[in-house]
Amino acid sequence: MIELYHNDMSVCAAKVRSVLAEKRLEWKGVHLDLRAGETQKPEYLKLNPNAVVPTLVHDGRVIIESTVICEYLDDAFPGHALRGGAEEKARMRLWTKQLDEGLHIAVGNLSLCIAFRHQHLKKTPQELKAYLDGIPSAETRERRRKAIELGMDSPTFLPSLHKWNDALQSMESSLGENGWLAGSAYSLADIGYVPYMIRLEHLGLEALWRERPRVARWRQRLFERPSYKEAVEKWLNPKYLELFDEQRPAVRHWVRQRMSTM
Amino acid sequence: MIELYHNDMSVCAAKVRSVLAEKRLEWKGVHLDLRAGETQKPEYLKLNPNAVVPTLVHDGRVIIESTVICEYLDDAFPGHALRGGAEEKARMRLWTKQLDEGLHIAVGNLSLCIAFRHQHLKKTPQELKAYLDGIPSAETRERRRKAIELGMDSPTFLPSLHKWNDALQSMESSLGENGWLAGSAYSLADIGYVPYMIRLEHLGLEALWRERPRVARWRQRLFERPSYKEAVEKWLNPKYLELFDEQRPAVRHWVRQRMSTM
Repeated sequence: MIELYHNDMSVCAAKVRSVLAEKRLEWKGVHLDLRAGETQKPEYLKLNPNAVVPTLVHDGRVIIESTVICEYLDDAFPGHALRGGAEEKARMRLWTKQLDEGLHIAVGNLSLCIAFRHQHLKKTPQELKAYLDGIPSAETRERRRKAIELGMDSPTFLPSLHKWNDALQSMESSLGENGWLAGSAYSLADIGYVPYMIRLEHLGLEALWRERPRVARWRQRLFERPSYKEAVEKWLNPKYLELFDEQRPAVRHWVRQRMSTM
Repeated sequence: MIELYHNDMSVCAAKVRSVLAEKRLEWKGVHLDLRAGETQKPEYLKLNPNAVVPTLVHDGRVIIESTVICEYLDDAFPGHALRGGAEEKARMRLWTKQLDEGLHIAVGNLSLCIAFRHQHLKKTPQELKAYLDGIPSAETRERRRKAIELGMDSPTFLPSLHKWNDALQSMESSLGENGWLAGSAYSLADIGYVPYMIRLEHLGLEALWRERPRVARWRQRLFERPSYKEAVEKWLNPKYLELFDEQRPAVRHWVRQRMSTM
């Protein structure tokens, strides 16, 4: 049996749901409310000491970290393979590695600077302080404090945007006409980027692919797959979508003003 | 044909040499002098835009990033397999991921604070400034500047030591009596840590496993494998070893004074 501890809007959880959908595997979900601190509870920490979603439990085996879970599912269930030969696998891993080593944190920061800060700004000063004090890493704490306080004026906003701009530029150069990230077949590399590509649109950052026709077409082809509706679209939380909708005009204005610096 | 662009003391290059030795593959090496900037040359940047070693070229296919190269070699040459079943692979990847997402940078920082700073301190102020100005990321530049200037008093020294202390504590808890990191068989996880485990010893940080008998025995078993002599030991550069030797007494003194804070 496959159980998935996940969350509707979590990009990492959406990745794993996409793999499950592509491989047509049955699974049972346990939905956790991140804002209510459900990943911090002692019983969940026993499964996932990092206090994040997703966690996969397959016949009692506990697997954490979305990139590792995705490869695990393709190893454990070889049908509907999502990885090619040795060379395609290497190319796939170079792409998923970039998410784990910077792009994930950058999109989290963009989301916080643009939208989620408004959830934090509704807290009392005491609640906000308690939230920030609870972040173990001094660097993360400082980054989030400034993101909440200054939004798009935070010193890390532009560097996070640049990180995605550079990644999409390198995608534009390497994507074939109708190709996928790792080569001619759809793979875990494409799946890894699906939830991020919709998040960037929600955040009003479509300027990132406006002059990148290959990225724009690849994005479209990602969203045309049945797994997208099943694993991502049907989980989109209206409360979050509304928050994104409210902020988009300001983001588009900011991007028009500053685009020349990108 | 397998060609490897590498460097004698580079931890990432040593990892790939270990895989080649364990799998008994023939290879041709191109040794690059990092201090002379040989990875920055235009012809090398065409192979590896990140300007780092190693780069593997296998029958014309260029593969970069040591963790990706190691998995590539095990995919392309299945003999003498260095990965187990789906669950062992997932455990292996959780370990190698930790190296790529923090432990590698931490050991680089410890090496700079303890030893390599003395190479930089021999430069003229102009040369040092040119070196620092050439580092693209502001965060990395600032970390290195302080490491060179302040050594073990740099604000990032203790956090880097803590990162390794935490990782080795979690190894101690998860290693079986005579086991390997991913389970009962030696794997890419163990190989990933080999060059780091010798570097920490060179840096005089053996306190990290003094009270961790499982880690200490596992380390010993790593070094008893023929691949260690072949891929790591025979490449150790006497000039670097001498530098480490000179600094070890001061490190041991520092550790004795500060160990209680770890």
